[in-house]
Amino acid sequence: MASIRVGLAQINPVVGDLDGNVDRILAVIASAEAQGCDLVALPELALTGYPPEDLLLRPSFVRDTRAALDRVVAATRRTVVVVGFPEAGGHDAHASTDHAENADGDGRGAIATLHNSAAVCAEGRLLGVYRKRALPNYSVFDEQRYFVAGAEPLALFRIAGVDVGVSICEDAWSPEGPIAALGRGGADLIVNINASPFNTGKASARQSVLAERAREADAAIAYVNQVGGQDELVFDGDSMVVDRAGSVVFRAPQFRAGLHVVDIEIPVEGDRPSLPIIEIPGAPAHRSPVEAATVAPRLSPEAEVWEALVLGTGDFVRKNGFTDVVIGLSGGIDSALVAAIATEALGSAHVHGVLMPSRYSSEHSISDAIALADNLGIEHRTIPIEPAHVALMEMLAPSYAGHSIGLAEENLQSRLRAVILMGLSNAFGWLLLNTGNKSESSVGYSTLYGDSAGGYAVIKDVSKLLVYRLCRQRNLSAGREIIPESVLIKPPSAELRPDQRDDQSLPPYDQLDPILALYVEGDRSAEEIIAAGHDPATVERIVRLVDLAEYKRRQSPPGPRVTAKGFGKDRRLPIVNRYRR
Amino acid sequence: MASIRVGLAQINPVVGDLDGNVDRILAVIASAEAQGCDLVALPELALTGYPPEDLLLRPSFVRDTRAALDRVVAATRRTVVVVGFPEAGGHDAHASTDHAENADGDGRGAIATLHNSAAVCAEGRLLGVYRKRALPNYSVFDEQRYFVAGAEPLALFRIAGVDVGVSICEDAWSPEGPIAALGRGGADLIVNINASPFNTGKASARQSVLAERAREADAAIAYVNQVGGQDELVFDGDSMVVDRAGSVVFRAPQFRAGLHVVDIEIPVEGDRPSLPIIEIPGAPAHRSPVEAATVAPRLSPEAEVWEALVLGTGDFVRKNGFTDVVIGLSGGIDSALVAAIATEALGSAHVHGVLMPSRYSSEHSISDAIALADNLGIEHRTIPIEPAHVALMEMLAPSYAGHSIGLAEENLQSRLRAVILMGLSNAFGWLLLNTGNKSESSVGYSTLYGDSAGGYAVIKDVSKLLVYRLCRQRNLSAGREIIPESVLIKPPSAELRPDQRDDQSLPPYDQLDPILALYVEGDRSAEEIIAAGHDPATVERIVRLVDLAEYKRRQSPPGPRVTAKGFGKDRRLPIVNRYRR
Repeated sequence: MASIRVGLAQINPVVGDLDGNVDRILAVIASAEAQGCDLVALPELALTGYPPEDLLLRPSFVRDTRAALDRVVAATRRTVVVVGFPEAGGHDAHASTDHAENADGDGRGAIATLHNSAAVCAEGRLLGVYRKRALPNYSVFDEQRYFVAGAEPLALFRIAGVDVGVSICEDAWSPEGPIAALGRGGADLIVNINASPFNTGKASARQSVLAERAREADAAIAYVNQVGGQDELVFDGDSMVVDRAGSVVFRAPQFRAGLHVVDIEIPVEGDRPSLPIIEIPGAPAHRSPVEAATVAPRLSPEAEVWEALVLGTGDFVRKNGFTDVVIGLSGGIDSALVAAIATEALGSAHVHGVLMPSRYSSEHSISDAIALADNLGIEHRTIPIEPAHVALMEMLAPSYAGHSIGLAEENLQSRLRAVILMGLSNAFGWLLLNTGNKSESSVGYSTLYGDSAGGYAVIKDVSKLLVYRLCRQRNLSAGREIIPESVLIKPPSAELRPDQRDDQSLPPYDQLDPILALYVEGDRSAEEIIAAGHDPATVERIVRLVDLAEYKRRQSPPGPRVTAKGFGKDRRLPIVNRYRR
Repeated sequence: MASIRVGLAQINPVVGDLDGNVDRILAVIASAEAQGCDLVALPELALTGYPPEDLLLRPSFVRDTRAALDRVVAATRRTVVVVGFPEAGGHDAHASTDHAENADGDGRGAIATLHNSAAVCAEGRLLGVYRKRALPNYSVFDEQRYFVAGAEPLALFRIAGVDVGVSICEDAWSPEGPIAALGRGGADLIVNINASPFNTGKASARQSVLAERAREADAAIAYVNQVGGQDELVFDGDSMVVDRAGSVVFRAPQFRAGLHVVDIEIPVEGDRPSLPIIEIPGAPAHRSPVEAATVAPRLSPEAEVWEALVLGTGDFVRKNGFTDVVIGLSGGIDSALVAAIATEALGSAHVHGVLMPSRYSSEHSISDAIALADNLGIEHRTIPIEPAHVALMEMLAPSYAGHSIGLAEENLQSRLRAVILMGLSNAFGWLLLNTGNKSESSVGYSTLYGDSAGGYAVIKDVSKLLVYRLCRQRNLSAGREIIPESVLIKPPSAELRPDQRDDQSLPPYDQLDPILALYVEGDRSAEEIIAAGHDPATVERIVRLVDLAEYKRRQSPPGPRVTAKGFGKDRRLPIVNRYRR
């Protein structure tokens, strides 16, 4: 048995913050060195944060990132560092032809070929580079927009007597890819660095795939993934070590940044690797034992989503330089959940609630909102909208005379609330959190520039039924009532006209949500959804509402993605679209 | 000399409107048949409209498109039809591995391989298919998200004694691609079907590239491109025929749908083609001569942008089922230009102007707005915002007490106007047109949910300096004052506080716009822009403003793209982004 001490650094980089990311990386390297690591692995594109998107099209950004890498390389000592960066190659046929149609305007032709690469470095030197071969270009991923796939011959790095192969993220997701080739070529251990966003069910899918790859390669796999929120994406870490038999021998807690040090035992075999070997000498350091590797327990589906929403929201607020948020508290369940998430993410002193009752608001809306604010310990104020409501209806009266304007008046109230919330946001620098859920956003049950407003939409990828489950889970885990029980049991209402209830406009959520899951997340046709047993008229109506609401969603705030298909980069539909099936 | 009669059908399809697109295609085929065409070429993906985006991920959509193609094929007679469609192939290695990371959630694995293909059909039969080889995945294009590149052996179609090769759009934009191979293989004529969006300068770039390809292939090229607006993209047609020497022998007028019939003379050579030949018999029809081919003159840069804005706006409104629009008329130049464009696109009876003066509005704002409305012949009404302004400031007074809230009060006025405009939009079904220009949008000089609101942002890709040029051009081409001269000469102001002028917050537009062009469209760094001679402090400030405004742009309406880099699919930057160089 050989033993190699590996550090899995699931750090939380900030996109574009090259200096800050270098500092984060140097801190991890120093700690890994101090703990006697033979190798420390950092995430994919850790130097830039992931995804850097079109920053990669700026030559200055690519140059500056290379200078940042040089600083990291210079700081390495005995511990071998594997770290992701965008690597500029020369001009090649791909770059000069593939971007030809655009050559007239935007200087894209000036960009050198880019690779999504992993640098392997130690003792102040860059010892090798691996270029990602499988470039995802589906769902939220656009890597073929930026990168050219690696095609160089593979090589292994001999570290502490162990032959180590390097691979990047998507490389691990298909059989007979680079991981199999590294294994067949003699790798004992394969490092896989990632920027793999969370969605429900992703963690177990990830683990199954790594187990398959390990058995296919007959090699252990050390998997490291970044942590943190970046616009709509939430990265959950979930770094792990899988042995050659596919068993998980270490797993880090999800959603928490940290360096985890694991001693990996490698059975020594006499076989000579067939791949070229880059020897990395490095005297074995004197080192004390590390704690035994542990396998963090899996979170429940609700707990996992809760953590993702808290991390995504907190990171969006902090990384954009805000400290405080403002939330309209309607007394309903959506704003209650958002306030609870914000309070956990930012602290109760940084969350500001605003009640804005109208002539149609019920008594319980006000008392429920106040009870919630008190349970959370957040500041709240009440600004009735009546004076502006009256003023605007009078201003519009000459135009509205003789017309039926029910919905227009409903929307007007919602927009007045946005004017008030943004008035506080602008005056005090509080980011407005939007409280719309995915069920509403799917069917367009919201007012554009009204309740659709906000800097971040905390639960935009959370269906209404899941909103209820998350609230109950919150009360359970707190061991007390955070979201008032009365909020959980009353029928949902927008309260924009007397005695309004959601189920006057929409099917009950236990009928609506399954249809939406099939249409929005499953890309099933109306016909297929009806064949699955749903009411035909309801399905036809819902499908039409979803399509018609595309224009509203296009102007909606970003928010954390927690399903395999959110309303963002992973669902790109035209606004002008006459397909209705 | 052989002669082949070719129809170039620059039609205006609607995305997702399979039945409508079939009708449009059948009408063109009938007309081409009646005019004795040997061949009629229709645009890339003409059956679905371009770009269909994630509709392509729905198996039902792909199936329905195939059924639509079958209807087209069945209707063909003697005239050979070349038409673009998404072609479902079998499951292959690409589809099953490339989408692996997503396999857990969204059923993407169920999608067969897709190709961006051209069907060649006649006499009710599908005679052959060409699969696009160069799939653009840059700028506004995401074709590698959907399609697998064609790699089948090439073939030629012998039509009326002429050996014809088929290619698709991007195939024409690089040397040594399929067009060169078709030429070397014996093609006399190469049909290139397109969905190539307009931007300033694109037409001449297109023509140069086609001339190069023709000379390289030693073959004539018949180029057909779709016409129309689709969300942010505007397609200008610009179909043309280039002879083997690279000379343009026919060019269609831009921005107008139509079928153009051209007799192309082909020098007959004895060489036997080396590529396989698919013979298409077809008896030569009795036919009368067509009009001599003409080369439509090029439009001026301003006229070209004007046409693009009119077509993009008109198509967005009509294709979404609207007839009427509403515009806030400030008396300034931006809303004047938008009203003039809307009036040309929709007719003066369908454009509704609203004046919303505040306590800070000047007399000339009101008189200029009324003069504009009168010049255009559009209905207008005046709704002063004072009552709601007073009401809201009183409602916010307890919160604002003791704070300096200048900017918040400015934004409040802008948002009240949006409440009024949306109140009219909701009540009467008028689409709200946004009037923000690209210079403002670049630096975030707008109020979110205020003047940033609207269903379509007509001049979002038009810089302020170009706004002036377009207005002058409009007055010139009308031969009278449409945009009042006083609007053209007064200093720009938002009029949200006493004596406000844009140049109190921003550098003059003749300094600002060139910096923005370098930073936003050119992807140059601040350092490079300063090195080009711009004031360092100004450049640093502008670059920072552009980056900080990303969150506003993300919630802004779509609008027609007229530059090589608009704020849309061609500029994908993160909101959380600390890169500042």
